[in-house]
Amino acid sequence: MNIIRTFLWVFAFLFLNAPIWAQNPVDQNFSDNKTGQDEFPETYSEVSNPIPTPVHLWQNRRQNVVGWGNTDTRYKKEEPARVGDISNKIEMTGWKGERISAQLVVSAVKSPLELSLEVSDLVHNSNKKWRIEQRTISTGFVRYVMTDELNKDKKGACGHRNAKDFDSTLVADPIDHLTRSLLIPKNSTRPGWVKIWIPQNAFPGSYTGTLKVLDSKKVIKKLKIEINVKDRKIPAPQKWRFHLDLWQNPYAAARYYQTELWSKAHFEAMEKDIQHYANAGGKSITASIMNKPWNGQTYDPFQSMVTWKRKINGQWEFGFTAFDKWVKFMMRMGVDKQINCYSMVPWRLSFEFFDEASNSMKIVETEPGEKEYEEIWGAMLTSFAAHLKEKGWFHKTYISMDERPMEVMQETIKVIKTADANFKISFAGGNHPELYEEIDDYCLSMEESFPQEVKEERRKNGQISTFYTSCAHAYPNSFTFSPPAESEWYGWYAAANNLDGYLRWAYASWVKEPLLDSRFTTWAAGDTYFVYPGGRTSIRFEKLLAGIQAYEKILILKEEFRNTNNQKSLKELEEILHLFSNNNFDQTTASEVIEKAKLVINSF
Amino acid sequence: MNIIRTFLWVFAFLFLNAPIWAQNPVDQNFSDNKTGQDEFPETYSEVSNPIPTPVHLWQNRRQNVVGWGNTDTRYKKEEPARVGDISNKIEMTGWKGERISAQLVVSAVKSPLELSLEVSDLVHNSNKKWRIEQRTISTGFVRYVMTDELNKDKKGACGHRNAKDFDSTLVADPIDHLTRSLLIPKNSTRPGWVKIWIPQNAFPGSYTGTLKVLDSKKVIKKLKIEINVKDRKIPAPQKWRFHLDLWQNPYAAARYYQTELWSKAHFEAMEKDIQHYANAGGKSITASIMNKPWNGQTYDPFQSMVTWKRKINGQWEFGFTAFDKWVKFMMRMGVDKQINCYSMVPWRLSFEFFDEASNSMKIVETEPGEKEYEEIWGAMLTSFAAHLKEKGWFHKTYISMDERPMEVMQETIKVIKTADANFKISFAGGNHPELYEEIDDYCLSMEESFPQEVKEERRKNGQISTFYTSCAHAYPNSFTFSPPAESEWYGWYAAANNLDGYLRWAYASWVKEPLLDSRFTTWAAGDTYFVYPGGRTSIRFEKLLAGIQAYEKILILKEEFRNTNNQKSLKELEEILHLFSNNNFDQTTASEVIEKAKLVINSF
Repeated sequence: MNIIRTFLWVFAFLFLNAPIWAQNPVDQNFSDNKTGQDEFPETYSEVSNPIPTPVHLWQNRRQNVVGWGNTDTRYKKEEPARVGDISNKIEMTGWKGERISAQLVVSAVKSPLELSLEVSDLVHNSNKKWRIEQRTISTGFVRYVMTDELNKDKKGACGHRNAKDFDSTLVADPIDHLTRSLLIPKNSTRPGWVKIWIPQNAFPGSYTGTLKVLDSKKVIKKLKIEINVKDRKIPAPQKWRFHLDLWQNPYAAARYYQTELWSKAHFEAMEKDIQHYANAGGKSITASIMNKPWNGQTYDPFQSMVTWKRKINGQWEFGFTAFDKWVKFMMRMGVDKQINCYSMVPWRLSFEFFDEASNSMKIVETEPGEKEYEEIWGAMLTSFAAHLKEKGWFHKTYISMDERPMEVMQETIKVIKTADANFKISFAGGNHPELYEEIDDYCLSMEESFPQEVKEERRKNGQISTFYTSCAHAYPNSFTFSPPAESEWYGWYAAANNLDGYLRWAYASWVKEPLLDSRFTTWAAGDTYFVYPGGRTSIRFEKLLAGIQAYEKILILKEEFRNTNNQKSLKELEEILHLFSNNNFDQTTASEVIEKAKLVINSF
Repeated sequence: MNIIRTFLWVFAFLFLNAPIWAQNPVDQNFSDNKTGQDEFPETYSEVSNPIPTPVHLWQNRRQNVVGWGNTDTRYKKEEPARVGDISNKIEMTGWKGERISAQLVVSAVKSPLELSLEVSDLVHNSNKKWRIEQRTISTGFVRYVMTDELNKDKKGACGHRNAKDFDSTLVADPIDHLTRSLLIPKNSTRPGWVKIWIPQNAFPGSYTGTLKVLDSKKVIKKLKIEINVKDRKIPAPQKWRFHLDLWQNPYAAARYYQTELWSKAHFEAMEKDIQHYANAGGKSITASIMNKPWNGQTYDPFQSMVTWKRKINGQWEFGFTAFDKWVKFMMRMGVDKQINCYSMVPWRLSFEFFDEASNSMKIVETEPGEKEYEEIWGAMLTSFAAHLKEKGWFHKTYISMDERPMEVMQETIKVIKTADANFKISFAGGNHPELYEEIDDYCLSMEESFPQEVKEERRKNGQISTFYTSCAHAYPNSFTFSPPAESEWYGWYAAANNLDGYLRWAYASWVKEPLLDSRFTTWAAGDTYFVYPGGRTSIRFEKLLAGIQAYEKILILKEEFRNTNNQKSLKELEEILHLFSNNNFDQTTASEVIEKAKLVINSF
């Protein structure tokens, strides 16, 4: 047994400290670390830490550090957690139906650890039969992924980037619930994540339980959990009003999982990943209706879910088999409010189609305002509308555009309305009052804003008004190096500004090895995805979810206070929301304002 | 008027002597000489002669040289025709229904000429009403095109070539019936071509007429023509037994004429070119049933006339719209004996198809013997057979292969016969006795031969046995620099060796500017095409036709002599054919042996 243990440690040492990664973290091609290729493994090895261990920080420690930390901190792998920052017991407050997260942290001082976590049921303090059962609590390790940083001017993170021009570090972000046991080398830190889904029908009151931290089979710490469940209820995610629109990329999933596009295996693999979007109340299905709507800006470009064919006789023919399969899958996953179809105005105005005459793909370059554009898109939209009506999806379908000049939009809208006057339209981009009426789902960049009366008017008309963040925003943002609370801030900001929701252009447009290295050839690391393969979420995503839940709770509270004419509470609420009315973080941090606000919310 | 004339001469001088072509004949991109682009012109300017004019050969001449030459000579542009080689009258012998050609030559010694030709009716010497009418006689200028030469070892002309490694010269080859008047600079030579289609119902006997050679409106020479029409008849080309198989390339025509593939304009443009193939008794329609059967070896690669689609459910779907249009067109043109379909064993074993899942073309690489190959081709051939039977074309259709190893062929044949045991198969390549029975249309490279009894056996079974020439043959061949008689030699060789016909891989796989420069990036110049755009034939093609007519005449004579038990004539005929039993031109030339043979044929 000792021989095997010794072997394991040698093995762990070699893998976790392999100097080749440390020397060359940028140019490595992950050849030894395939996480998605060949066979999908339950666990994987992280790339080595490019930062040397600051040995002096570890030398004076006498014992391992094990305790609850907080969810706003990305604990460094190479540094020990500070004993003063951690505790043996965590106390949290939640509503029935809410999901709440806690982070623990372990620093291996004395020797390596073969770490695992075991959580108990949480038991009500009035009646032992009332429980938040273990099966509604997930535990996982927070894993380290390679990240970079903002542009050197600190004003944003857009543009092509060469990895060598940026500092690269390991950052705690993926939440890995698949790896059940992890070898922690001596002098390194490993956080863990606990996520509790309070049952919709839980009895209010206090629940307590234990998280056991084990080294191999030996319990090294018992951490206490106490949850105060309030007598308030948050509805099931599908009923949430927050309009969450994170663009999905099934092409990235097909590549990463090595499955045939739209095959049974492809859909099965995606279920685990899409589930988090559905559980966060995801509203929009992202559909690509022509090849490369964003000119292949992602590692896996979007192809068209609609086949385009020009027959020898010059007629156009469109096929919707892939589109139908994708939409049905997403609806089955619980994302069924709307279908956003990209794009009549792709970033490169070139449209690819199958040419029957030559048995090959051809490209036509044409733009809104041209006769050829009208003819092609007229044919496409007419065929598409007929198909959508047959499926009963027409009223849910939005012809979608993003970041195009207004004149182009107006020409495009003419073509859409000519094909079918009832087609809905969505747009994420600049603020054009001329378009308020035409655009049914209008998303502004965070720094822009709709007039207050416009938002009310639009809501009355069944139109949606949301905001988005992108590489253009240094903060708040959700890069892998962004402070976690900034993702939570979105929900509070939407509530404070009477917006309907939030959009981000990439839910899971994975890079080559998303679990290992979140950097990409453009934009700051993590811009292209929120969740990790294998159904793994992230600190960023869990914080986003916390913000969305805050939004739902605020709507419920506001309604209650208005209905009961509780002016005092309403005023308290409005005051606390005022903290989120702008995104100026010069004087404070997202974490600080959210902490203040939570105290108020939890007081109701 | 004089001003216009002067302008014309200046214009002609600039164009025909433009030094930029002479200095850089290789790298020119024909930017000033577009012959097929934009608008198809009736005439065009040749590229300049890279060979300087040998002025001494012209200095002592006193007057222009105008007279009949012979069709075996490619007259040099820069040298005066020798007076001793030409004559004022030409006497020719032909059968009823035969096409006979004559070449005249004009050397402008004294001054430039604005050359045109006018031919009269040819009148029977017994009765003036009996005529070979002008409308059955075509006249044209022989034009100069850039050519190169054999490989440096003189053993062949295969392989990639860099123009600068080879001598480049202008050579007389295209026969241009569209240009009605041509400016001939002083000290240059220009041949003309006269082609007479003796009516099927002509009275035997002697016909005479005149060809007027004009300088602008002035007749500078009247050349006499006398044709002795024998009381023998050659049938219409569609009834010829010679199996002529020159591979057509509609993709080259579409590009050159700038027409949409398979459009009305495309077919209209091709009519003029395909007409010569039909009139030479062309038997095979060349159809490409997958993309790039020869891995894109021609300037315009063959795409598939059959669309290939893999549906999301994994099923294959094939479309035959282009195939049907092409086959119907060729049949309407008179080429309707068989359809040769390339290729189940393309030179690169990669098959391109439209992938419904991704709205894009995908490639599958698989080879005979593999399960995937069987599945794909099994699906294709089953669908194809059903379609062909519906069209009534199944019995005319050959699944065609060329130059593949025998083992590969055998595996492929299994797949074909599994799909439909009655599919016919054609093959051009090596000599494999094991395949004699399976291959219905078998074409051997010229240096190979079928055993005598095999040819008889195959003919009895309705199977065809032919031969081909390619870049592997230094001579006889039909490069633009090959002696013209070598193309005629093919027909005689087939007759002498009891073969059914001849195949060449390229009828009109045009290079970028086929009228200007016959060189290509692989093989010797002219290898890729026999005829020129605009319905222009060539010296090579007219000589090929002469050989095919000789073949038909020999079959007819042999049958007659056998039927009449005319042993003497049969022996004479066999003896003269013996001259063609091999292709050894060390001691003689194609021209010499054909001249001898013709004397004998014409004596019957």
